[in-house]
Amino acid sequence: MKIIKPSATIEAFTPNLNKVIEAAGRTCWKSDDKIEPGSAEPFIERVKGFKHESVLEHGAITVRFFCDRGVSHELVRHRMASFSQESTRYCNYSKGKFGGEITVVDCAEGVGWTKDEIKYGLWMQACEYAEKSYFAMLEEGATPQEARSILPNSLKTEVVMTANPREWRHVFRLRCDRAAHPQMREIMLPLFEQFCERWPELFADVSFTK
Amino acid sequence: MKIIKPSATIEAFTPNLNKVIEAAGRTCWKSDDKIEPGSAEPFIERVKGFKHESVLEHGAITVRFFCDRGVSHELVRHRMASFSQESTRYCNYSKGKFGGEITVVDCAEGVGWTKDEIKYGLWMQACEYAEKSYFAMLEEGATPQEARSILPNSLKTEVVMTANPREWRHVFRLRCDRAAHPQMREIMLPLFEQFCERWPELFADVSFTK
Amino acid sequence: MKIIKPSATIEAFTPNLNKVIEAAGRTCWKSDDKIEPGSAEPFIERVKGFKHESVLEHGAITVRFFCDRGVSHELVRHRMASFSQESTRYCNYSKGKFGGEITVVDCAEGVGWTKDEIKYGLWMQACEYAEKSYFAMLEEGATPQEARSILPNSLKTEVVMTANPREWRHVFRLRCDRAAHPQMREIMLPLFEQFCERWPELFADVSFTK
Amino acid sequence: MKIIKPSATIEAFTPNLNKVIEAAGRTCWKSDDKIEPGSAEPFIERVKGFKHESVLEHGAITVRFFCDRGVSHELVRHRMASFSQESTRYCNYSKGKFGGEITVVDCAEGVGWTKDEIKYGLWMQACEYAEKSYFAMLEEGATPQEARSILPNSLKTEVVMTANPREWRHVFRLRCDRAAHPQMREIMLPLFEQFCERWPELFADVSFTK
Repeated sequence: MKIIKPSATIEAFTPNLNKVIEAAGRTCWKSDDKIEPGSAEPFIERVKGFKHESVLEHGAITVRFFCDRGVSHELVRHRMASFSQESTRYCNYSKGKFGGEITVVDCAEGVGWTKDEIKYGLWMQACEYAEKSYFAMLEEGATPQEARSILPNSLKTEVVMTANPREWRHVFRLRCDRAAHPQMREIMLPLFEQFCERWPELFADVSFTK
Repeated sequence: MKIIKPSATIEAFTPNLNKVIEAAGRTCWKSDDKIEPGSAEPFIERVKGFKHESVLEHGAITVRFFCDRGVSHELVRHRMASFSQESTRYCNYSKGKFGGEITVVDCAEGVGWTKDEIKYGLWMQACEYAEKSYFAMLEEGATPQEARSILPNSLKTEVVMTANPREWRHVFRLRCDRAAHPQMREIMLPLFEQFCERWPELFADVSFTK
Repeated sequence: MKIIKPSATIEAFTPNLNKVIEAAGRTCWKSDDKIEPGSAEPFIERVKGFKHESVLEHGAITVRFFCDRGVSHELVRHRMASFSQESTRYCNYSKGKFGGEITVVDCAEGVGWTKDEIKYGLWMQACEYAEKSYFAMLEEGATPQEARSILPNSLKTEVVMTANPREWRHVFRLRCDRAAHPQMREIMLPLFEQFCERWPELFADVSFTK
Repeated sequence: MKIIKPSATIEAFTPNLNKVIEAAGRTCWKSDDKIEPGSAEPFIERVKGFKHESVLEHGAITVRFFCDRGVSHELVRHRMASFSQESTRYCNYSKGKFGGEITVVDCAEGVGWTKDEIKYGLWMQACEYAEKSYFAMLEEGATPQEARSILPNSLKTEVVMTANPREWRHVFRLRCDRAAHPQMREIMLPLFEQFCERWPELFADVSFTK
């Protein structure tokens, strides 16, 4: 059994996102004559003050998540987004390319446990028991999509998610918030930092309860 | 540990669905003068022949699913639909109202196993081990949203899903198909029968690979 | 040329909306043992305090709008909603069922004009000229979907829109607001009153700039 | 009054779209070890054979449309897409930047008229009368969002639309089809050619009734 830390990486995005949004947004007022170097940022600042943020919907950012299936089950609820997810139907973890073992996402840091706590030991044992059972079921002739039934929420999954900047703003507002699951925040807070660093005009103002 | 069979029940719906759809759809042609007893059904028949089925989007049907979390993870991917799902964050299965036990969905029938097969025994043992670990973790001070990490895909979940007739048609096309997960089909095929019985004009023509 | 006032009428809806929402929403906490007469309203009050309103998405309300095509062009932008609209492609306003005339929506009240103002006279003349041209084009062999090209924004259109309570809340927040087009507000403010009267728990708290 | 031809231009897009889709899609099977130069195209070919095309949803393509408001009213009905549109509320066509005139989209070619036909003359007169009325209303103190009421469907509008490849496939299937409005097809057929030339693997197989 492999144990990994959760993570999220920006994998693709529309180049010149600020400029794409400016060009789209200025269509509303036909103020494209005002486009010049440095004009996108104050324009974006201005549209963020509107009641709706539809101008921020142009372009797309694609992120690869390595998370557990508890987190992914929440993630895929976002509607204005696209998902491709590692399938427990099609992946056979007994096969060589998976190293003949399952991978789980370490929960300790996310939920604030130390690794010498009894509950962490229980977690690890339960994951190992699930792994053993999964492989035993495959040996008894179960297919992966049958044997998946006993795999735990902690199973590592990969989800590639594509969404527009407005939707990502909405995602961060909900998923970085103190009300979110701690393992969701564990992934989303650093991802939010990455977004803010790369596109400060589009994300740095997003607020949530810390 | 309680073991239940999966199921799905129609819980609420727009009354006179055919008539609601007819009244909405005839707006396009302003042919509302043709509305009379018995006119909805041939009207619906006709619009089903169009390239898109947008006229069939009026009204809503709400279904309660009792399924496992493998199935629910697929179900919530449908976008033109609304979901409320039993939360492993907020439900504490050690509490009295859950009978102090977890509930799992029996996988045998869905995947075509008999209960004397070794793999079924392995499944049951793995679910029981997960339950034992979950309760032990709670006793060690884990919260339900932490301890959920080791709960298996087979965990029973309830999902209430509301969608319009067009979206349900799309759901049945994908989820009743031979390409769907057998436990998805186990739920969807009987639900489809219920829909066809109650609203034959809206659903009986939906086709999929058997 | 017929001139009508804009309006909107509730045409269909899920019965016992509060109860449907309560039953769906309590699934999250499995608190359905608390369902009893009068329990839906405080439950709804509570979920309205959440960061997202997804519990309020169950059920559907269908409204028929009589508005002009300027307003309808904005209305159909709402995504979690379904629309059937009077089609200028399929309706031939020279035909008997339309009384051989076009219908326009009176703009005076919405935008705060009195009917003795010169601009109102200009509006009426322009609409009449458009009508005359439309019929002349049909007589020259144009099809309705060709001749529609010169019909004005003021042309009356009917739109049947179905959405869930959460989406309607969002619609009212944007479309009743002072920032909305005055003719949009002319329709939405009275509709909002109808919603508040019928489902006070679901709508009366919705706020916007007056 | 300016008369222009309708058109559509690709304005922005995710680079290496095939590769982005391959990387996302292979996540489902964890077959990323098969990614190599030239592997994206056969992969895309394969996923196009599935019942749903969700793998084709990653990345985004942004198009600027110059069309009339009859066409745009249909265009904005697509849901998995984002729109920013020239606003008749905020644009004052009497202002210098619009050359003090309105712009209309020539309907002749789209609907198959020649410019010496009487109906074409009627169309032009009607547009000119609308323009004259619009400017007269502004002079009488009407605001642009009031005076827009008499602007015709032929009014030129700009719409910037961003969507993922799957949604564009859906758009072309409906909007290039013989059943679509001729002025919609006039724009969509050449745009489809542009898409096929640039991303043949993603679009060339899309079919519709010619």
